[in-house]
Amino acid sequence: MSSVVVESDVQLSLDSIRESLIRQEDTIVFSLIERAKFPLNSLAFEESSCLDSGNSSSLTEFFVREIETIQAKVGRYDNPEENPFFLDNIPQSVFPTHKYPQALYPKASSVNINKRLWDVYFKELLPSFVKPGDDGNYASTAASDLACLQAISRRIHYGKFVAEVKFSDAPHDYEPAICSKDTEALMKLLTFEKVEEMVKKRVEKKAETFGQEVKCVSGDDESEKNYKVDPSLVSRIYGEWLIPLTKDVEVEYLLRRLD
Amino acid sequence: MSSVVVESDVQLSLDSIRESLIRQEDTIVFSLIERAKFPLNSLAFEESSCLDSGNSSSLTEFFVREIETIQAKVGRYDNPEENPFFLDNIPQSVFPTHKYPQALYPKASSVNINKRLWDVYFKELLPSFVKPGDDGNYASTAASDLACLQAISRRIHYGKFVAEVKFSDAPHDYEPAICSKDTEALMKLLTFEKVEEMVKKRVEKKAETFGQEVKCVSGDDESEKNYKVDPSLVSRIYGEWLIPLTKDVEVEYLLRRLD
Repeated sequence: MSSVVVESDVQLSLDSIRESLIRQEDTIVFSLIERAKFPLNSLAFEESSCLDSGNSSSLTEFFVREIETIQAKVGRYDNPEENPFFLDNIPQSVFPTHKYPQALYPKASSVNINKRLWDVYFKELLPSFVKPGDDGNYASTAASDLACLQAISRRIHYGKFVAEVKFSDAPHDYEPAICSKDTEALMKLLTFEKVEEMVKKRVEKKAETFGQEVKCVSGDDESEKNYKVDPSLVSRIYGEWLIPLTKDVEVEYLLRRLD
Repeated sequence: MSSVVVESDVQLSLDSIRESLIRQEDTIVFSLIERAKFPLNSLAFEESSCLDSGNSSSLTEFFVREIETIQAKVGRYDNPEENPFFLDNIPQSVFPTHKYPQALYPKASSVNINKRLWDVYFKELLPSFVKPGDDGNYASTAASDLACLQAISRRIHYGKFVAEVKFSDAPHDYEPAICSKDTEALMKLLTFEKVEEMVKKRVEKKAETFGQEVKCVSGDDESEKNYKVDPSLVSRIYGEWLIPLTKDVEVEYLLRRLD
């Protein structure tokens, strides 16, 4: 069996992917800090009756579904880095759109683990870093949750690009495990504990840097630092959810890579 | 003429307002840094034909109009801190909403300078801090522009709260200028150059802190710092646009304060 080469007018490289993932960390840390302005506000994402449709949907789910439709109409999902949470059929863009280079294997578009991310986010990830309580700011909370979800989803599904470049660099390393659908072996091939530890350390430092209170006068008391989000929690969010989910995407992508 | 006391179940104080404005600086700096990931992408906000409606509207205007409608439906504009860019009639929320305390004089809702902000943002402010060029990422660019616009709009219109608390603290200082509609005198009463300089200095430092490249290993070369947005530009954005527009809102609010 020979490996299939993706026709690509863009040169994916591990360096450019690494650079993007590092920049995405800033976006994710910013979005977590912004979400932490509000308490949990669980009424927003728990099931409730929408007065409009009579359907039972949480405010946040209603919001995200509607926003994704608008975003599709301006071409968001033409970008292979973006994956919707709810759209089964993506509406056509109503504006002339950019033609993104095809860097991924065509089956890539069928890899989407946003349903799992949605559950993990609201059940585990979100309650881990926001304070409990309810301040009634549901609309702003939903917008903040969407920003977090989209930033995290982009990071996780970037695993497709990671997997593609790893596969292209050494197809013979991956082909046996792909053919035998050996998920465990693939996971082993994709795991670099030292790199993961470095990422966790770096995002902790980013949370310290971006979540500190910046004062005008330098020489302010450094001893009592108040962080907007506990930096060790951000490290944990990466270690427990973001890194493993990214690797799950990589495995899913590779399993389809020779179809 | 006696001053009218706003019935308020919330105690506005200069301290709480100051705290909110300082926290909003972080949000604004984050949003500028995120927008600077993309080049100007002016095709997104210049007039073009929408394929859907046949109407002539820019992609960004179409996007913001549609998103504001969705946000209204989940109650965003029930919050007196939020002011829409395009909605003349705000659609009813389709979910049970939070009742926000009435901290402002009822005429406050008629103060909205978002049209001016829109023009200033796309013509002057945005081109001042993003690189020229076009990478085709219009959907992400529009979402980033909306985040900037909403963060800046919130800050500017927070001038209503600033004006209310200043007025309530010393109504007799303001009444003569309000009665004679003396805009210049009001502007003088509201201007504290030392405070403005401090704000400009602080946001510059925030841009340095939040826009730096955070590396894992401490002791990295401090000499060549690459900022995602030039910190002096953020200071300029506050000095030239955000602070003056906030004061314009304060004046507009006060001019209606005795109606």
